[in-house]
Amino acid sequence: MTGAARAGTASATGTGWPDPDLRQWYEQRREASTSTVTQVPLDALRDWRTDPVTGDLGHRSGQFFTVTGLDVRGDGGPVPGWQQPIISQPEIGLLGLLVRRRAGLECLVQAKMEPGNVNGVQISPTVQATRSNYTRIHGGAGTPYMEHFVRPARGSVVADVLQSEQGSWFLGKRNRNMVVEAAGPVPAQENFRWITLRDLQLLMGLDNVVNMDTRTVLACLAAALPPPTRTTGDAFAGLVARGFSPTAGAVERDVDVLSWLTALRSHRPLDVRRIGLSTVSGWHRDRYAIDHDGGRHFGIIGVEVRTTVREVPGWRQPLLRPRGRGIVAFLARPIGGVLHVLARAAVQPGLRDAPEIGPTVQCRPENYAHLPMSRRPPFLDAVLSAPRERIRYDCVLSEEGGRFHHAENRYMVVEADERVPVRPSEEFRWVTPRQLATLLAHSHYVNVEGRSLLAALYSLAGSCP
Amino acid sequence: MTGAARAGTASATGTGWPDPDLRQWYEQRREASTSTVTQVPLDALRDWRTDPVTGDLGHRSGQFFTVTGLDVRGDGGPVPGWQQPIISQPEIGLLGLLVRRRAGLECLVQAKMEPGNVNGVQISPTVQATRSNYTRIHGGAGTPYMEHFVRPARGSVVADVLQSEQGSWFLGKRNRNMVVEAAGPVPAQENFRWITLRDLQLLMGLDNVVNMDTRTVLACLAAALPPPTRTTGDAFAGLVARGFSPTAGAVERDVDVLSWLTALRSHRPLDVRRIGLSTVSGWHRDRYAIDHDGGRHFGIIGVEVRTTVREVPGWRQPLLRPRGRGIVAFLARPIGGVLHVLARAAVQPGLRDAPEIGPTVQCRPENYAHLPMSRRPPFLDAVLSAPRERIRYDCVLSEEGGRFHHAENRYMVVEADERVPVRPSEEFRWVTPRQLATLLAHSHYVNVEGRSLLAALYSLAGSCP
Repeated sequence: MTGAARAGTASATGTGWPDPDLRQWYEQRREASTSTVTQVPLDALRDWRTDPVTGDLGHRSGQFFTVTGLDVRGDGGPVPGWQQPIISQPEIGLLGLLVRRRAGLECLVQAKMEPGNVNGVQISPTVQATRSNYTRIHGGAGTPYMEHFVRPARGSVVADVLQSEQGSWFLGKRNRNMVVEAAGPVPAQENFRWITLRDLQLLMGLDNVVNMDTRTVLACLAAALPPPTRTTGDAFAGLVARGFSPTAGAVERDVDVLSWLTALRSHRPLDVRRIGLSTVSGWHRDRYAIDHDGGRHFGIIGVEVRTTVREVPGWRQPLLRPRGRGIVAFLARPIGGVLHVLARAAVQPGLRDAPEIGPTVQCRPENYAHLPMSRRPPFLDAVLSAPRERIRYDCVLSEEGGRFHHAENRYMVVEADERVPVRPSEEFRWVTPRQLATLLAHSHYVNVEGRSLLAALYSLAGSCP
Repeated sequence: MTGAARAGTASATGTGWPDPDLRQWYEQRREASTSTVTQVPLDALRDWRTDPVTGDLGHRSGQFFTVTGLDVRGDGGPVPGWQQPIISQPEIGLLGLLVRRRAGLECLVQAKMEPGNVNGVQISPTVQATRSNYTRIHGGAGTPYMEHFVRPARGSVVADVLQSEQGSWFLGKRNRNMVVEAAGPVPAQENFRWITLRDLQLLMGLDNVVNMDTRTVLACLAAALPPPTRTTGDAFAGLVARGFSPTAGAVERDVDVLSWLTALRSHRPLDVRRIGLSTVSGWHRDRYAIDHDGGRHFGIIGVEVRTTVREVPGWRQPLLRPRGRGIVAFLARPIGGVLHVLARAAVQPGLRDAPEIGPTVQCRPENYAHLPMSRRPPFLDAVLSAPRERIRYDCVLSEEGGRFHHAENRYMVVEADERVPVRPSEEFRWVTPRQLATLLAHSHYVNVEGRSLLAALYSLAGSCP
């Protein structure tokens, strides 16, 4: 099962394309996108320079992002500390989804090319723009539909919240996740299309079609929607629907979930300091990449992008290229007739307020290949060895293609067996999807991988509003 | 009206001591506290040292706190930028209130001496401890009642949330605000006393009796309590009670309040960098203090403390000494029969996630004496010139006496007249007390001055659970 072979095709548990027209539109957009992405030496990134003092790699304008270094010290945990490169992007970008009410809710999506995507084009929200983008620092055209988000009509905001992004790769980055209901008719421009929320959710069953930005916005939308009420005949779908119901009983009171995080945050699990990229130990830079000495984790590469479908015809930029494919999984099971997922406190150095709530398993197994079994992440083997009938969701999804090169994770929802205890350890809590969705009205509660899984879970519940 | 003359006496709008026994206990505790606080030269602070490179003033153990410098740049606002000293205290302390249910809710409070208090002893929560305190870095005795908060019994946590503190004086500081219901009988040790929540709220009507730590915990408790239902005959009390009701209609939808903050945060109103204390421009250090060149804002002084009532008999430490007394006020008025307060987006450089929601007015008027009228804070004069019958709350309350020397603010709730518009500007929103209380289940929404006012407002609602 390789990324290339599965890209754009229905996954084992997916339902295929919900609508032939939609598939045709998407394939046409991919064909119209004649883009090439070529690796180039780091010193050949025209508008980027390596700071002679720190070694940091930044844009000459001071905008966009900077690759810098991080010194991380643990607080008595199994890993004593480490250093790593990390992307610093203090600007807050906008991930905006325009919706309208027809028979059901409809979303204005975009077929967007990003240089790091394995398959070029994926489905993105209406607006996906860094502040540099929409203030036109790169000299490109204006961002379509931005006006709906900059000055939304009174009463039209459905969700609007700052959320963190990959805490292992970004230093304190967050984006504004915003859903706005269109005030009047809004025609779809080229590359854009109105699709039903249900179709968008069904596309979550395909590999590498719905991009990360869409998934996080969908997760933030879930709390604002009524819970799915009608379900397919599938018993698991009914369990999921009840898991999103505000009246369903949770095994942990809401205040106890908050108290769990507060206690962990009070102990300051990681002490994080920014350092110069050239001083990061355990990593080396050659002509084409900055890589981990052990060949693990990720590297920083440079690429040249030529395209016909973006605001500017071509550019060069660094990308973060992860090693291997990650596993991101929720163990799930009914407790008292209500679906719960096993949340793990995600301690990642780039999170502004660690830990956030993350998936049960979130790792790149290759990074653990050199370690003894006792150091493998909890529940990784339970997920990987689960029998097929317990795997309820299994898709390969990409992380942000504007910063990451071919960053794929295998996202899974796996039904746990009853041997998993109600409180495996202080790191874990069983929570309902509804509890997670409700927290997504606020910042820094559920990490981006957890949000992707929550959007995937919602899509399993059958018909929804 | 000076602080000394009013300290510990009923304010103009206060109701006096609710219970003679309580007053007698408090006065006895004050008398038993034979403490002296003497200013000493900064270089005579034994366990503190000035870093030869940065000029920062820190404890030799590396614990407690450090006085450092801050470089602040605005984003096109009226103030272009400034530098200032600031207290860095990355450790998260605990403010813990133990409660129990009798006829009504009762709270275990402490009569606690802090060196910066104008009147020595004030009412504090059950536990008020920095991490250095309760891990016994200073070699003192253990912190009483800590066990109730470190390992609370299942189902006993009422509130547990990290909240920011003074964003002009602290760099990113936050404390854990925690309310726990006692699982069994808990006797009050010396200096401690069980009092009813209602009595504690009535003490909010006295000057300098209920300390800041108690007030912020009370505010976080408000959301967990049912709204006050029985009221006194006072019509304003009825309005306040309705303002705390979850069913009362608010002029702004909850999502619009969140969206307001999200939009302001996305624009990154302040760019803040830590710098060495010795490089801070506009300030100077002499033998006894670090002061603003214009004599405004605040200074850093050193004190020697001798006392019989703390874990150690004496110590020396720096304190931040503000200039003049501040004004902290909510304008309030009914909209649609429900009390609303006029919230201002508080942009303070030390907040981890600025802006938070703050009072309508929060300033030290003396800092504006040298500026033209047009630069005076909005609504300051409306508050100061309000006719007596519109002043619904008016008490002098102290900020944290463990870090601040005689830091008093005049806290006020003033009924606005109808000329104040429904949306005065992007900085302001009318919100219900209930909306603020609900947000206090989460971090970084309402600043510490706003929380004090919210606790004061709740106390005006008459009887409560």
